[in-house]
Amino acid sequence: MSAPQNDVSDWWTTSIIDMAPGQIRLRGHPIQDLIGSITFPQMIWLMTRGDMPSDGQAQLLESALVAAVDHGPQAPSIAVARMSVTCGLGLNGAMANAVNMLDDVHGGAGEQAVELYNSIANAKNNGTTLQQATAEVIDMWQVSRTPFIPGFGHRFHKPEDPRAPRLLSLVDEAAALGIVDGKFADIGRAVQTLMNERKGRPVPMNIDGATAVIYAELGFTGPLARGLFCLSRSVGALSHAWEQMQQGGRNKGPTPPAYRWTYDGPNPIED
Amino acid sequence: MSAPQNDVSDWWTTSIIDMAPGQIRLRGHPIQDLIGSITFPQMIWLMTRGDMPSDGQAQLLESALVAAVDHGPQAPSIAVARMSVTCGLGLNGAMANAVNMLDDVHGGAGEQAVELYNSIANAKNNGTTLQQATAEVIDMWQVSRTPFIPGFGHRFHKPEDPRAPRLLSLVDEAAALGIVDGKFADIGRAVQTLMNERKGRPVPMNIDGATAVIYAELGFTGPLARGLFCLSRSVGALSHAWEQMQQGGRNKGPTPPAYRWTYDGPNPIED
Amino acid sequence: MSAPQNDVSDWWTTSIIDMAPGQIRLRGHPIQDLIGSITFPQMIWLMTRGDMPSDGQAQLLESALVAAVDHGPQAPSIAVARMSVTCGLGLNGAMANAVNMLDDVHGGAGEQAVELYNSIANAKNNGTTLQQATAEVIDMWQVSRTPFIPGFGHRFHKPEDPRAPRLLSLVDEAAALGIVDGKFADIGRAVQTLMNERKGRPVPMNIDGATAVIYAELGFTGPLARGLFCLSRSVGALSHAWEQMQQGGRNKGPTPPAYRWTYDGPNPIED
Amino acid sequence: MSAPQNDVSDWWTTSIIDMAPGQIRLRGHPIQDLIGSITFPQMIWLMTRGDMPSDGQAQLLESALVAAVDHGPQAPSIAVARMSVTCGLGLNGAMANAVNMLDDVHGGAGEQAVELYNSIANAKNNGTTLQQATAEVIDMWQVSRTPFIPGFGHRFHKPEDPRAPRLLSLVDEAAALGIVDGKFADIGRAVQTLMNERKGRPVPMNIDGATAVIYAELGFTGPLARGLFCLSRSVGALSHAWEQMQQGGRNKGPTPPAYRWTYDGPNPIED
Repeated sequence: MSAPQNDVSDWWTTSIIDMAPGQIRLRGHPIQDLIGSITFPQMIWLMTRGDMPSDGQAQLLESALVAAVDHGPQAPSIAVARMSVTCGLGLNGAMANAVNMLDDVHGGAGEQAVELYNSIANAKNNGTTLQQATAEVIDMWQVSRTPFIPGFGHRFHKPEDPRAPRLLSLVDEAAALGIVDGKFADIGRAVQTLMNERKGRPVPMNIDGATAVIYAELGFTGPLARGLFCLSRSVGALSHAWEQMQQGGRNKGPTPPAYRWTYDGPNPIED
Repeated sequence: MSAPQNDVSDWWTTSIIDMAPGQIRLRGHPIQDLIGSITFPQMIWLMTRGDMPSDGQAQLLESALVAAVDHGPQAPSIAVARMSVTCGLGLNGAMANAVNMLDDVHGGAGEQAVELYNSIANAKNNGTTLQQATAEVIDMWQVSRTPFIPGFGHRFHKPEDPRAPRLLSLVDEAAALGIVDGKFADIGRAVQTLMNERKGRPVPMNIDGATAVIYAELGFTGPLARGLFCLSRSVGALSHAWEQMQQGGRNKGPTPPAYRWTYDGPNPIED
Repeated sequence: MSAPQNDVSDWWTTSIIDMAPGQIRLRGHPIQDLIGSITFPQMIWLMTRGDMPSDGQAQLLESALVAAVDHGPQAPSIAVARMSVTCGLGLNGAMANAVNMLDDVHGGAGEQAVELYNSIANAKNNGTTLQQATAEVIDMWQVSRTPFIPGFGHRFHKPEDPRAPRLLSLVDEAAALGIVDGKFADIGRAVQTLMNERKGRPVPMNIDGATAVIYAELGFTGPLARGLFCLSRSVGALSHAWEQMQQGGRNKGPTPPAYRWTYDGPNPIED
Repeated sequence: MSAPQNDVSDWWTTSIIDMAPGQIRLRGHPIQDLIGSITFPQMIWLMTRGDMPSDGQAQLLESALVAAVDHGPQAPSIAVARMSVTCGLGLNGAMANAVNMLDDVHGGAGEQAVELYNSIANAKNNGTTLQQATAEVIDMWQVSRTPFIPGFGHRFHKPEDPRAPRLLSLVDEAAALGIVDGKFADIGRAVQTLMNERKGRPVPMNIDGATAVIYAELGFTGPLARGLFCLSRSVGALSHAWEQMQQGGRNKGPTPPAYRWTYDGPNPIED
C-alpha cells in the first residue's frame, strides 16, 4: 500500500487486508473477484486462515456453522439478545451482548474440546493406542484442569444430542472422500466410549464436542473454534432479537413480573 | 413442545425454535435435516424470515455477506476488535465490542438505505416517474432527517467503491433470471445519477448502498439489513482479533505510545 | 503537554486530561491534589463538567447516585450481570453487559425527563403559568414523541416509589439553603399533579423522574443524566455479579431449566 | 418478601435486595434511610460487602475510586469510549465498551496485585521475615504465572507514578489512626524495594499497585478490586464520551484518515 509509511502506519500491521482508493484486497485477492465467486464459509476460512479451502473443506465447515445457530430462549446468549431489544438496544447491541456471553463456560467448550482432541492426538503419536491415549489425557485433564470433559454430556438432550451423529456422519463421508483424515472423529468416539463406560450411562457428545471434531479435522485452533461458534450463534441472536422487536415489550425481565426472587439476607420485608 | 405450559413458559414466546429432549426444530425443520443439507446463507434466511430461499436468492444474499466482511484497522469496528485482545479479552469479547460499534453511524447506513429505497419505491408506485420519485424522496429525507444520503459517497474510495459495481452486476444477472425484480437496482442507480448531478462530481455508491439494493430486492427490512451487516463484519472482527492475538501486544492504544493527544483545557503542563 | 504536536496528536483533543511523565492533571488539577481531598461525587462532577461543585451541590448529586444502584434481579440490567458470570465472564464483562442494557427504554427515562422538565421551564419562561406550561408541554410530548411520560408511573411500586419523596425532600432542603433554585422540584410536582388528574389515580413519580429533578436542578444535560444513572446502576451490577460468582452456577438461563418457552411456529414437536 | 415462593422465584436468590410494592431494602436497610444519609462510597461498600464501613474506611475507599478515573485517550478504555460515540452509540454503549475492555491485561493488574499481596501476607504469617516472604512469593509468581509483577512499572510515568505516593501516604495516615492495619502498605513497599534491587533502577509502584494496597487493607477480594476499578474508570469513560459527543465526528478511526496501516501479506497493491 502506498500510504505514507512511518511509525504511525506501522502501529497496526496486518496480512489480512490491503487498500488503496478504489481497491480492496483480502488476503491478496481483489474484493471484486471474491464477491459472487466464493461462498460465505469460504470467505470465513480465507479471512481467518489466509488460504482458500477446497469445496469439500468449505462444506464441512458450513455444516458446523449451520448446526450451532440456536438453542432457544433458555440459552443465556439468546435470552440476552431478546432482553436487550426490550431495553431499547438495536440489533447490533443485542447481538453484541449475546456474543459477549459466549465466554469460557457458555462458549468455551468447543475451544476446549479442540484442545482435548489435539492432546489425545499428540499422546497417540507417541506410540500408545487410541484407548490408552484417550484415558491418559482425560485423567490428566480432570486432575490439572477440571472434572468437566468439554463437549460431552447435556442437561437437556438425553440420551443423544440430535446434532452430533449427523455432524459425525458428515465427517465420515468427508474422510471417505479424502477431504479430511478422520482421526479426530475416531478420537471423539473414543472419548464418548470412555465417558459412557466411566459414567455407566450414555454421556452424549454434544454440539461442542461434535463441531470440535470438525474444527480439529479442518485444522482450526481452539480459539478459532470459539470464534466460529460466535459467528454461528450470532445468527440465532439476530433472529430472536428481531422476533422480539416485532413482538414489542419493554424492559422484559427474565421471568414474569409477578415472580420476583428469593431474598435470604437480613431484615426481610414482612408480609 | 410438551413442557409444562404456564405463565412462566409463556413469558418467552417464539416461532423460531422448538425443542424436546433429543429433538431440535428450527422454523419447523428437524435440525438434522438442515445440517449438511442447506448452506449457511440459507440458514441465515430461514432463521431470520421463516421460509426457505431459492438457490438464487440465497446466492445473492451470500454475495452481500461476502462483500462487507472487512474494511481494515482504520474502521472503528476492526480497530476495537484488535485493541480488545491486547486488553485481555477473548475472541468472543473482541467480536462483541466490534459488533456493538455498528450503531447508527458506523452500521446504520445500510439500514437507512433500505428505508430510503423503499420510500422511493412507494413514491413511484403513486404514479410519478422514477426520477421524480427519487428527487422528491431525497429532498424530503434531507429536510426531515439529515443531509447525509445513506449509502452514497466514500471518504476513501474515489471515484468508485470496488464492491458496488460488482454487487450491482450480480443483481442485474439475478433480475435477468427472474430471481429478483430489479427495481431496487434501478432505484439505486437513480439515486446515484441524482447525487452525481447535484454534487457535480461522482458520488460513488458505497458498500452500504450496494448491499441495501440486494437486501431490498430480497425483501429484507431495514433493521435486518443492519443485522446482516453485523454478521458479515463479525468475520473481519474475528480475523483481525485472531491475528492480533498471535502478534501479541499489551494494552495497545490507538496510536504509538510516543504520540499522545492535544490538550486544550486549563492549566496545561509546561515543558 | 510537550509531546510532539502534529496531525496524529491532534486527532484526539481533550480538555479533560493532560499528562507528562510523572504528572497527571485532570481539568487542570494535579491528580495528587485531588486524591484524598475531594469526594468521588465531586470527582464525577469535575470530570464531566470541568468545574468544582460546592459541597451542597456535590451532596445532592451524591444522593441521586446512591438512590439508583439497584432494583433487583427482575431488572434486565441486574439479571444480565448475574447471567454473565455464570457464562464465564469476569466482573468487567458482567458490568459491561449490564450498562449496555441501559439504552433508551431501560436507561433513557431519566434523560428524557430532564428534557421534559427543561421544556416546561422554557415554556414557563415565555410567560405562562406553571400549570399551563406543564399541560402544553405534556400534550406536545405525547403527540410528537410518545404517550409515555418519562419518570412517572411504576409497574411495581404503587402508590408510591419510596425513593422519590425522599429525593424531593432533599431538593427542598437544598433550595431552602440556596444551593439550588427549586424550580425543577416545582415542575416535577406539577407534572405529578397533572398526571394524577388525567389518569384519575396516583401515577407515582419514579426514580427516573426524581433523579431527573436533581440533575436538572444541578444543570446536568439529559445525556449526562443517563450517564450518571449508568454509574449508579453499575454498583448494583457489580454487587449482584459478585454475589452470583460466589454462588456458582453454569449458564443460568432466565428461568429454571424445567421451564422452557412457548413455541407458536409451524410443525411443533408432538408429545 | 411475600411474593409467591416457588421454583421460579428460587431460581434467583440474593441477600442484597428485598422489595415489596412501595418498599425497597438494600442489605436490610430501607432505601429512604440511605438516600441523603450515606455517601456513594459507603453505598458501594454496603452493596458489595453487606456491612456498613466506618467513615475512615469509606474515605480510604473513596481515595482509591478518585485516583483511577482516567488515563487519557491513549488508554484503550478511554479511546474506545470516544470512538463509540462517533459510531452512533449513546453514553451507555460507550461506557459498556470501555468497561468491557478492562479485562485481564488492561484491568486485571489491581486484582492480581491484591492476590500477590495476600500471598505475601500468608507467607509472612508462616514465620518468615517480610523480605523473605516477598522474595519467595515473587519468585514463585514469576515461575508459575508470569514474569510481570502486577502493579509495578509504568511505560510512561517514570521514575514515579504521581498517584502512588499520595495513596500510600493516605494509608499511612489511616494506619496511624487505627483505621487499617498498615501491613499491606509494608508489603507494597517491600515489593517495590525488591523490584528496584532486582532491576537496578526504579520500578515505580503504579496506580494498580497502590490501589491494591488500599483494597487489601480494607479486605476487598481480588475480583472486587477489579470491579471497583471498573466503577472508577467508568467516570473517565463517561467524561470522554460526552466530550466527544459535543465535538462531533463520525466513525473516528484510531489514527487520522491519511494514515493507514502496514500490510505485510501476499500480493500487495503496487503504487
